Amino acid sequence: MSNFISRRQFAIGWGQCDPAGIVFNPRFFEFFDAGTWALFEAALGVKPHELAATFGIIGIPLVDAGARFIAPARFGDVVELTSQVSEIRRSSFDVAHQLFVRGEIAVEGRETRVWAARHPTDPAKMKAQPIPPEVAARFSAT
Amino acid sequence: MSNFISRRQFAIGWGQCDPAGIVFNPRFFEFFDAGTWALFEAALGVKPHELAATFGIIGIPLVDAGARFIAPARFGDVVELTSQVSEIRRSSFDVAHQLFVRGEIAVEGRETRVWAARHPTDPAKMKAQPIPPEVAARFSAT
Amino acid sequence: MSNFISRRQFAIGWGQCDPAGIVFNPRFFEFFDAGTWALFEAALGVKPHELAATFGIIGIPLVDAGARFIAPARFGDVVELTSQVSEIRRSSFDVAHQLFVRGEIAVEGRETRVWAARHPTDPAKMKAQPIPPEVAARFSAT
Amino acid sequence: MSNFISRRQFAIGWGQCDPAGIVFNPRFFEFFDAGTWALFEAALGVKPHELAATFGIIGIPLVDAGARFIAPARFGDVVELTSQVSEIRRSSFDVAHQLFVRGEIAVEGRETRVWAARHPTDPAKMKAQPIPPEVAARFSAT
Repeated sequence: MSNFISRRQFAIGWGQCDPAGIVFNPRFFEFFDAGTWALFEAALGVKPHELAATFGIIGIPLVDAGARFIAPARFGDVVELTSQVSEIRRSSFDVAHQLFVRGEIAVEGRETRVWAARHPTDPAKMKAQPIPPEVAARFSAT
Repeated sequence: MSNFISRRQFAIGWGQCDPAGIVFNPRFFEFFDAGTWALFEAALGVKPHELAATFGIIGIPLVDAGARFIAPARFGDVVELTSQVSEIRRSSFDVAHQLFVRGEIAVEGRETRVWAARHPTDPAKMKAQPIPPEVAARFSAT
Repeated sequence: MSNFISRRQFAIGWGQCDPAGIVFNPRFFEFFDAGTWALFEAALGVKPHELAATFGIIGIPLVDAGARFIAPARFGDVVELTSQVSEIRRSSFDVAHQLFVRGEIAVEGRETRVWAARHPTDPAKMKAQPIPPEVAARFSAT
Repeated sequence: MSNFISRRQFAIGWGQCDPAGIVFNPRFFEFFDAGTWALFEAALGVKPHELAATFGIIGIPLVDAGARFIAPARFGDVVELTSQVSEIRRSSFDVAHQLFVRGEIAVEGRETRVWAARHPTDPAKMKAQPIPPEVAARFSAT
């Protein structure tokens, strides 16, 4: 686990819940996506919409994601989402997310993302790029 | 009202409903958006993702929208959405949407959209363009 | 306009934007919904998920909504949403929303909602109820 | 894998895509959810909104989900989603989803869900129940 942890607190809204009165599961993957953007902003000091231009990439597309739903989050619950890079490789990395309801873990998520630039010969495709050392350094444990 | 009416039938899904068990209102505006794309495909014979390139525009951005919610649509309801151009002007047009549940009107929606190209001097902005006569003709009442 | 104004600031996320890089219009209606819940919490001191039980109602369903899209909101923009009750009647009320991007108005929205209880003879339906005086008083201009 | 496969074809809409012009990843989990409901309707002959009442359960809540994103799905792509029960246990089951773009696999998803009734002593909680033999039989390979 890296040193940087992004923490965000927010209340679960009416529109994020399903007829059972609990968060509709795809919303958690939306939370994870927002958590990763917030984490990168905190760690790199780069605004989300400037990340691609700053590093000459297209983006950080997701190649794998998963979640374990331990307890429900309900309309009105104030939750905390923590996000941190759990592993960083040459051109890809993993982000671990944890969502807490009243201090208890409710959802565990993980994402694997790629540091991707436009493909050199086929502009409709993308190609994994080495993660710059200064980026990797920000996410490496001391 | 124009001659072209797009009709789509679909069932209301679990994830489109809120804790009251009825469609969360912003979903209806998603339905309207999809209805407009379907209408243009039906009327012009152009796939949604080819519309911009075909006519040299950026898109058909929304400038005004509204809805009247007459009766709820519930999880499992099979609904019918009708969409048609209700008025066409030089560079903008109105689309009227109606959503029926078991043959009864449940929601009435309206959109005003602009036929928009990139601004000639400021590429970050867009500029309304005259709607091509062949497009207008497809939506004009006989 | 009432004295109570709910103000919320937030950044536009990646997942709220469409292929044009701007907020997909139904998301604004999600913002409005959240704004209304926040406004009621601020004005009445009642948590959103406790509103129905506190006042013996089913909820505050939407019967009419609309928006005027003046300027786009883009990925990364920090926006401010203000929400306030613009008119309160016997059993329904209007909420006015304004979304600002860099201090400039970008979207104006309005909602009409009903103070609704379960229908006395048909539990599958709802029925408008008089808004309690203590609620109305909180939203009335001095 | 069971004998029942639910197949659904649909076009990727504008509002399901992100600024990269491809489906925003949480939408795939929405597709999976809809795929599971469609699968149960096809296998059991029970409408989604009647599933709970028919079998005396609360629902089939998700306890684990995951996806592998192999290739992007873009605005306008006509995709096919297949969903089938890949394993059925005493009170839980797995659903395997595959999303194809132009005949090529683009996303692989999996869900683990529980057959859940209201908890006998705490109505705010739920409790896994044995899956009825007639349900299990519909999903068992011959």
